[in-house]
Amino acid sequence: MSALSEFELVGRHLRKDNVRGRADVVLGNGDDAAILRLPPQCDLVVSTDTLVAGVHFPPAFSPADLGYRCLAVSLSDLAAMGAAPAWALLALTLPAAEDAWMEAFAGGFFELADSEQLELVGGNISRGPLSITVTVHGQLPKGQGLRRSGACAGDWIFVTGSLGEARLALDWLDRMDELTETAHRQLYRRYARPTPRLAAGRMLRPLASSCIDISDGLAADLGHLLEASGVGADLCVEDLPLSPMLMQLADARTAQSHALTGGDDYELCFTLPPAYADRTEAIAAQSGCKLTAIGQIRAGRGLRVLRRDGSELDLAAPGYRHF
Amino acid sequence: MSALSEFELVGRHLRKDNVRGRADVVLGNGDDAAILRLPPQCDLVVSTDTLVAGVHFPPAFSPADLGYRCLAVSLSDLAAMGAAPAWALLALTLPAAEDAWMEAFAGGFFELADSEQLELVGGNISRGPLSITVTVHGQLPKGQGLRRSGACAGDWIFVTGSLGEARLALDWLDRMDELTETAHRQLYRRYARPTPRLAAGRMLRPLASSCIDISDGLAADLGHLLEASGVGADLCVEDLPLSPMLMQLADARTAQSHALTGGDDYELCFTLPPAYADRTEAIAAQSGCKLTAIGQIRAGRGLRVLRRDGSELDLAAPGYRHF
Repeated sequence: MSALSEFELVGRHLRKDNVRGRADVVLGNGDDAAILRLPPQCDLVVSTDTLVAGVHFPPAFSPADLGYRCLAVSLSDLAAMGAAPAWALLALTLPAAEDAWMEAFAGGFFELADSEQLELVGGNISRGPLSITVTVHGQLPKGQGLRRSGACAGDWIFVTGSLGEARLALDWLDRMDELTETAHRQLYRRYARPTPRLAAGRMLRPLASSCIDISDGLAADLGHLLEASGVGADLCVEDLPLSPMLMQLADARTAQSHALTGGDDYELCFTLPPAYADRTEAIAAQSGCKLTAIGQIRAGRGLRVLRRDGSELDLAAPGYRHF
Repeated sequence: MSALSEFELVGRHLRKDNVRGRADVVLGNGDDAAILRLPPQCDLVVSTDTLVAGVHFPPAFSPADLGYRCLAVSLSDLAAMGAAPAWALLALTLPAAEDAWMEAFAGGFFELADSEQLELVGGNISRGPLSITVTVHGQLPKGQGLRRSGACAGDWIFVTGSLGEARLALDWLDRMDELTETAHRQLYRRYARPTPRLAAGRMLRPLASSCIDISDGLAADLGHLLEASGVGADLCVEDLPLSPMLMQLADARTAQSHALTGGDDYELCFTLPPAYADRTEAIAAQSGCKLTAIGQIRAGRGLRVLRRDGSELDLAAPGYRHF
């Protein structure tokens, strides 16, 4: 059997019919391109992300988790726009064609895809150093996409979920056996299988003045939002939502630092005009995702991180460094 | 300066405003995702392709040619569907952040993008082994996309342009200095900067019964078309369009073999019902691209390649092997 056939063979795991066909897919995976039909009065939202072995994930990362994670990371971008997931394309570069690896990878990928009614409509497998590029497509009512720009002085700043645990998981990656099995599983999952905040993003669409997903760390990504909006912000570091596990496994200073600058959280950071601040409880209840006010937008430029006593933190290292 | 900032810096070459904004781009490159507006009564056509250094192109390939080629290869898929190019996303993985490399790459990419009114609406740069994934989006009138399926017994089989030169260029890559400068330039260009047959694809849309682009070699890709259509075909090997350069630099047997099984041609292979066979001259004239009848679809299965004397060729190696 030629090597090409081997890659074609493992690629079959990506064509299995465990995703029910969406009505808006005219022609799916298998031709030169997919043909898709956007519902009337909808805008199309598109984003692409690459994960490289040894850079964005440990080389020995479980293929099932990798399949889940590469899609979750891309879907988080759709969540930040308030879009509903629809279609994905997958470009997979593999050092060798291994059937078991591919089956596990597809299992993780489709677990998340199926739960979000997302259909894989195209892709290809190449030989080369392990790397994955996922391009996701979402839909939203015309003109209603959330953006990084739009935050106004006086708006409250919120985040979904809790911060810093993904970074904590990386600290503990080599000594997970020191943790209880429950703690191990919970912590590893926060890094390996982030939850894209799609439901929260969609509910925020008519309310939030701006939104971004936190992939590079809160300080770095909120910084991008402030720059795009042309405003500044004050955060209160004691208001950051820290998980019980983060507070238990890290000292207070490390916990705050992870919450402020740790990457890979894939929570949303958004701004709400004061008039909508009372809507957050209902959104949290319906989306099943905690929302926490962490600060306020102000005129001017730059991000100030304050302690409750009014003193200012120095953010020497804003954000996770990819490289 | 941190390494991340270096990558951000080189990434600026991809945001330059040398592409006039398309009216259907609501929000372009720079947010978590792009927001795009498909014109009414249009279907969306999407395809993704990856080029890996050392697998799909020589590691020392010129960055300007690489920028051009990675987009050309993806646009060829849109051509095969009869779609008009609209938007692209670029995921670039680079071993180092080199400004001069990036500027040259962007130069090649935008040379082709601009000439096809295509806008780059998103992308990212990662550190890692050199590899490029381009996702392209095209538009076509609802329900009118060309497919691999649809060929019927009696339809004529055509190809655009000429075949085998890209494969010939690979043969000569290490001894280009034995060629005249004109021959060198012409041959190298056929491999480095293939011409996606977009105009021909669009004109064929209402006429052709099926279409595919030839990336893996005529025999392999026509084989895919036959399988998708559930038919067989007879080709006449003496009818294959060989360029004067191919006939000059290769013996007759090698020239035929390259035309049949050499990859990277990025020509279109399509089938036409006999009633439309007289339309090809007008399409060739308007698209500036030669069309040649090379055989005919028949009932049954499989591809037979015949000599003019009626004897059959044995296709031991159908198509370029990627691996």
